[in-house]
Amino acid sequence: MNKKYMARALELAALGEGAVNPNPLVGAVVVKDDKIIGEGYHHKFGGPHAEVFALEAARGNTQGADIYVTLEPCSHYGKTPPCAKKIIDMGIKRCIIATLDPNPLVSGRGVKMLEDAGIEVITGVMEKEALEQNRVFMKYISEKKAYLFLKCGITLDGKIASRTGNSKWITNEISREKVQKLRNKYMGIMVGVNTLIKDDPSLTARIENGRNPYRIVVDPYLKTPFESKFVNFDDGKSIIVTSQENMKNENIKKYEKKGINFIYLKGYDFKIDEILKEIAQLGIDAVLLEGGSYLISKAFKENAIDGGEIFIAPKILGDTEAIPFIKGFNFNNIADGFELHNVKINTYGDNVSMEFYK
Amino acid sequence: MNKKYMARALELAALGEGAVNPNPLVGAVVVKDDKIIGEGYHHKFGGPHAEVFALEAARGNTQGADIYVTLEPCSHYGKTPPCAKKIIDMGIKRCIIATLDPNPLVSGRGVKMLEDAGIEVITGVMEKEALEQNRVFMKYISEKKAYLFLKCGITLDGKIASRTGNSKWITNEISREKVQKLRNKYMGIMVGVNTLIKDDPSLTARIENGRNPYRIVVDPYLKTPFESKFVNFDDGKSIIVTSQENMKNENIKKYEKKGINFIYLKGYDFKIDEILKEIAQLGIDAVLLEGGSYLISKAFKENAIDGGEIFIAPKILGDTEAIPFIKGFNFNNIADGFELHNVKINTYGDNVSMEFYK
Repeated sequence: MNKKYMARALELAALGEGAVNPNPLVGAVVVKDDKIIGEGYHHKFGGPHAEVFALEAARGNTQGADIYVTLEPCSHYGKTPPCAKKIIDMGIKRCIIATLDPNPLVSGRGVKMLEDAGIEVITGVMEKEALEQNRVFMKYISEKKAYLFLKCGITLDGKIASRTGNSKWITNEISREKVQKLRNKYMGIMVGVNTLIKDDPSLTARIENGRNPYRIVVDPYLKTPFESKFVNFDDGKSIIVTSQENMKNENIKKYEKKGINFIYLKGYDFKIDEILKEIAQLGIDAVLLEGGSYLISKAFKENAIDGGEIFIAPKILGDTEAIPFIKGFNFNNIADGFELHNVKINTYGDNVSMEFYK
Repeated sequence: MNKKYMARALELAALGEGAVNPNPLVGAVVVKDDKIIGEGYHHKFGGPHAEVFALEAARGNTQGADIYVTLEPCSHYGKTPPCAKKIIDMGIKRCIIATLDPNPLVSGRGVKMLEDAGIEVITGVMEKEALEQNRVFMKYISEKKAYLFLKCGITLDGKIASRTGNSKWITNEISREKVQKLRNKYMGIMVGVNTLIKDDPSLTARIENGRNPYRIVVDPYLKTPFESKFVNFDDGKSIIVTSQENMKNENIKKYEKKGINFIYLKGYDFKIDEILKEIAQLGIDAVLLEGGSYLISKAFKENAIDGGEIFIAPKILGDTEAIPFIKGFNFNNIADGFELHNVKINTYGDNVSMEFYK
């Protein structure tokens, strides 16, 4: 057993980023006589699994070989036979696994199927790295809630816009390119209705061969403008989260004619967690929270943020009336405030970001 | 001529940081047959010059050698003969110089003395790097004003303290160690009187073999508390900048008994540049501006900041009543706000800083 092969499998898994959701990222490597003889990864949602690619690449030479795979091979018969079966059939001698399946109903079953067939199984190799890589999938499957990732671009004094609402541009082009990658990586993108009214953002991932995210607006009082870009995408990927009280509002039909979907929740002050649960129900495994202050502040208050990246530009407004990315708290001591964890610093030219995880 | 020797001379010069002010950092390297035969740098204020160390180290072997020096050798007879004379006397054939002396009264005289003696002189080698290294000296000599460097530790939302004034601790230990180095590097440290009243800061450089900076408080209305650490250092390095109107204030004598020095200025709303001119008159070549909001905002407004380092911690107060590092401006557009230039990003664990220069 050699960790470097698992590292390679993780590297392969990452190639599926932005294309496999809500399925997991998975990479696999077949090794014989200390040489890689087959590689594979999960390319896209609904496509063949990583093990299939790797085993096919090594076909004819798999007898007695090892397979390294970042997620426990599946054990259920669906459209295709399970990967565990294929591993057995192709004469693999040893299977090295980074993480077990997070679904409690099937977790461990793949391992058992392999062991029952006499294959040696080693689990937990580079488990931490593999769990980090599949943070979204792990939450989505085990909690049945969408993963929430905050994206925010601020001035050095913490503002997302001037007092008149001007926000173009705070961050530089390199940062904004990274934002496009985030929009491609996460299936959904969420904003508050005020951001939609003020900025009419495009909410697209302007990236080559990328996919556009689902667009979600939190709009308790149904104020989303009909003429907004959000309403006029005509791709069925715009979702309004609004109060149940609006179900009989005559405007609902007008929105629906435009292809808008609705999530209805009780009351007007929705818990972020409730929203994330409903979003997961739609098969969306993660959302990028892009603002504004109200929704971001609420997400911090409810400790609903799973991770984030805050981009900081070397610009200063110096205006207490300018719009902060977060507000509404009253802490007497620094120690009582919010603290980001597992921080990683990224540099984008003269911009810098703090990436963090719960 | 080989740039790598000038790079080495610059490296040597840097060793004098925090010990030579208000004199310049200077490094020198003597080279013969493409080998370094002598190295030297300006160690401390009032001590021998870099060329002297380098030439003495190479003594007996300097005939026909090259000397690389980061600043034009001096040409005036003072306590010791000028360095240019020593270079001539020791048979140096070629002198490579990074920057000329910034003092218009003597600039070029060293070069002339060397050339008159038949020595080949090359100037401007790695000039940009040398000018950057001696930013403080260059301003101090050519403008007769102290250099102003901002140091500031903020939360991710731009605050330096909670609404109740709590500020311990925003930045982490690694950042705070760097601050001690800055306090050792710059001769003076400046704060507004409110910071002194609220925080009673030590204003010392807690660094091994370091020197404590001069302490300067901007206090137009003479409110510096007698019991503050600032007043009770007893080392003659505390300076109050106050209004001329206070010259006859009976408290002045009490402060003076404690060894406090005064800078008197007209009116009550001092221009930062005026303060920096007076400070330079006292032989202090640079000050570290440590706060608070009022003084920092003023310095931004008057474009008086020559450089700075703003430390950002992954902490958030989310309180519009907390104390921002800068305030009092009203910009409708991001493009109208302040922008930092020549930004360099430094990482200190989970803290990050933006270092910048005018």
